[in-house]
Amino acid sequence: MGFREHLDEVCKVDGAVAASVMGFDGIAIDTVTPAETLLDIESLMVEYSGIMGQVRTAAEGMQAGELSELSIGTDRLTAHLRPINSEYFLILAMTPEGNQGKGRFLLRVTAPKLKEEL
Amino acid sequence: MGFREHLDEVCKVDGAVAASVMGFDGIAIDTVTPAETLLDIESLMVEYSGIMGQVRTAAEGMQAGELSELSIGTDRLTAHLRPINSEYFLILAMTPEGNQGKGRFLLRVTAPKLKEEL
Repeated sequence: MGFREHLDEVCKVDGAVAASVMGFDGIAIDTVTPAETLLDIESLMVEYSGIMGQVRTAAEGMQAGELSELSIGTDRLTAHLRPINSEYFLILAMTPEGNQGKGRFLLRVTAPKLKEEL
Repeated sequence: MGFREHLDEVCKVDGAVAASVMGFDGIAIDTVTPAETLLDIESLMVEYSGIMGQVRTAAEGMQAGELSELSIGTDRLTAHLRPINSEYFLILAMTPEGNQGKGRFLLRVTAPKLKEEL
């Protein structure tokens, strides 16, 4: 399975708007966008990638251990981010009404599969 | 009910380590720490308050709407943060094994009550 197929699997959850494999530098390897949105979703994911890096640095600096998950909920979008390895992470953007629990579950099971391919 | 009583209510969830009403400037109004931890939990909450402010700025700047919730999970701690108003937010730090769903629920119902008192 390639990146695209894994991202398509992640996007099978209700409410999925976009999913991407991104570097902590904000550069995406691959992105799928199953639903239309008025938001500039790709720019938002780049913004969030910067935050992801800062959270990781803060958590590790405070001995809280490795970052396992970050979720950011706003009025119009909920984003779940999960590190794949030290360089890449998986992000799933969903409508706030989507099935967040299943979305987070799909990230948890998909991240190790992507790790093998990176 | 004062801040302390609200924070005690939030900490009734399994796995609660600390709860605080904090300003986006990182200064806490009140904090309760029901469980011992080897982490410097107060410093970690200050770090996370800075991230909370950056996430809010990024989300609003990208037209994603108001920030409603931020969750940060690491190996040793999961923190849930929810804005109360434009100046203050509620933070609940839990063990990763704690009942995260209930913790997030308690923040959601408690934030409006605190808003009335701020």
